[in-house]
Amino acid sequence: MTVDWIAVDWGTTHLRAWLMGGGEAVCLRSDKGMGGLAPDEFEPALLELVADRITGSTPVIACGMVGARQGWVEARYAKVPCKAPGIAEAIRVPTQDGRLDLRILPGVSQDSPADVMRGEETQIAGFLARDPQFDGVLCLPGTHTKWAHVSAEEIVSFQTVMTGELFALLSTGSVLRHSMGAGWDDEAFADAVGDAMSRPQAIAARLFTLRADSLLHGQTPATARARLSGLLIGLELAATKPYWLGQQVALIGAPDLCQTYATALSAQGLAPTLHSGDDLTLAGLTAAYQTMKDTA
Amino acid sequence: MTVDWIAVDWGTTHLRAWLMGGGEAVCLRSDKGMGGLAPDEFEPALLELVADRITGSTPVIACGMVGARQGWVEARYAKVPCKAPGIAEAIRVPTQDGRLDLRILPGVSQDSPADVMRGEETQIAGFLARDPQFDGVLCLPGTHTKWAHVSAEEIVSFQTVMTGELFALLSTGSVLRHSMGAGWDDEAFADAVGDAMSRPQAIAARLFTLRADSLLHGQTPATARARLSGLLIGLELAATKPYWLGQQVALIGAPDLCQTYATALSAQGLAPTLHSGDDLTLAGLTAAYQTMKDTA
Repeated sequence: MTVDWIAVDWGTTHLRAWLMGGGEAVCLRSDKGMGGLAPDEFEPALLELVADRITGSTPVIACGMVGARQGWVEARYAKVPCKAPGIAEAIRVPTQDGRLDLRILPGVSQDSPADVMRGEETQIAGFLARDPQFDGVLCLPGTHTKWAHVSAEEIVSFQTVMTGELFALLSTGSVLRHSMGAGWDDEAFADAVGDAMSRPQAIAARLFTLRADSLLHGQTPATARARLSGLLIGLELAATKPYWLGQQVALIGAPDLCQTYATALSAQGLAPTLHSGDDLTLAGLTAAYQTMKDTA
Repeated sequence: MTVDWIAVDWGTTHLRAWLMGGGEAVCLRSDKGMGGLAPDEFEPALLELVADRITGSTPVIACGMVGARQGWVEARYAKVPCKAPGIAEAIRVPTQDGRLDLRILPGVSQDSPADVMRGEETQIAGFLARDPQFDGVLCLPGTHTKWAHVSAEEIVSFQTVMTGELFALLSTGSVLRHSMGAGWDDEAFADAVGDAMSRPQAIAARLFTLRADSLLHGQTPATARARLSGLLIGLELAATKPYWLGQQVALIGAPDLCQTYATALSAQGLAPTLHSGDDLTLAGLTAAYQTMKDTA
């Protein structure tokens, strides 16, 4: 395979590089995420993955936390309302190794309420490259779930909810961890979503009942886990109701997690579509590369 | 000092023993909390603190997680509505060292909503020993804040809110830690309490703004910390409104934390009284000892 260009998704904890050429995409992974690297360690980390696969000058297009202030080089935010940043907004980064012709795509910010994203905007670009007419709401579940209102090919506004990080902290780092285990309970999940949505003001009093129901009533670890997920997703849906109510919603992310959100949203009468986050990251980077080639 | 008896508060992370005699109380501390001990390690841990201070058979009265299923010996919960458990409900625990005449006070449970406490019931007993006529609500802020409705010397119902643990997890273990620092901001705290109380359904969308406001608008670490505290305490007050609304409220715990809660409750028109948690633990254990002596 001749490598025409390299697509890079560089997050806080992971680095992925796709070697692109002849209609193929070969994905390489490393755990050298942006969070553990000093500025001068980014180029070696990338070369470790790709050095023996490239020959001449090779375009590299990257998105994600690599462009944060603590990253390789800062790629400043585009500000909503705006198109998802493309190659025109990318910054070129000088490299030691002359074969790397590197560009980093910026993130997107919002002044009020203050919010930022880095990486998700490229998934949004990928989504809109496939469906430019889409008018509605994109939900990108993850550690920090993003909700974005998209219209006329622009990101109009967006909102971040820390549901994934809260779930991880509570299920592994809090007293609730003693009550959690593998498995799932559909009914408990649905009940908890409904409970949190209808009485979000009571959420602070609900969490500890997950522990107490294990101690007093033999609640199973799978039920406790599904209830915690349901409470937190229900609280998220209560907070983001102005986003999704009466809207067309597309879910973008890991298939299992998207399915969990789809279940919760379906109970609210919505019929969200599901899209692979990995596919759309690559689609967004590819759209940027295509524009670069077309305008070269 | 002749040691008449020993008062013990044995929590998950710490052990405190007060040597009691001749109107004095000498407090000894150890980090051998219940969380790190196997059942046969409790007696040595206690003796390490007190062995060279006692001679003949010495009453020891203990409260806290030492009586949990994973503790020294399980002291089963009393169930609300009930008096705060006293010496009559304590279980005697056999020891290797004949000098220890040990009793552990049980915790309190509630069937629905499921809830449990261990240790706080002894503070409540201490509070009621001083003020038996109290009719109202006790709030015991901490890792797991307890709200207890008390009437006619009984605990009528109670509710646990994990505010302290959430604050610790979010301020030290989440992405928000990058925006937090020492210091405080009274106005930001008050605004955040009001925001969370008036729109609890939006809380899930508020947390990440603490990070974004640092990145985009130069918010100080002290302001971020006060806002996080305010959002979480505001959410707690929204959840516990059925407890405190129109009630006489007494705060029991660490003075700084009680003052923070008092500030938030005062903005709601309440005039809570403040009480040292340590003093009331000792008062509760002392009341148990007194009953034991009086009925001997």
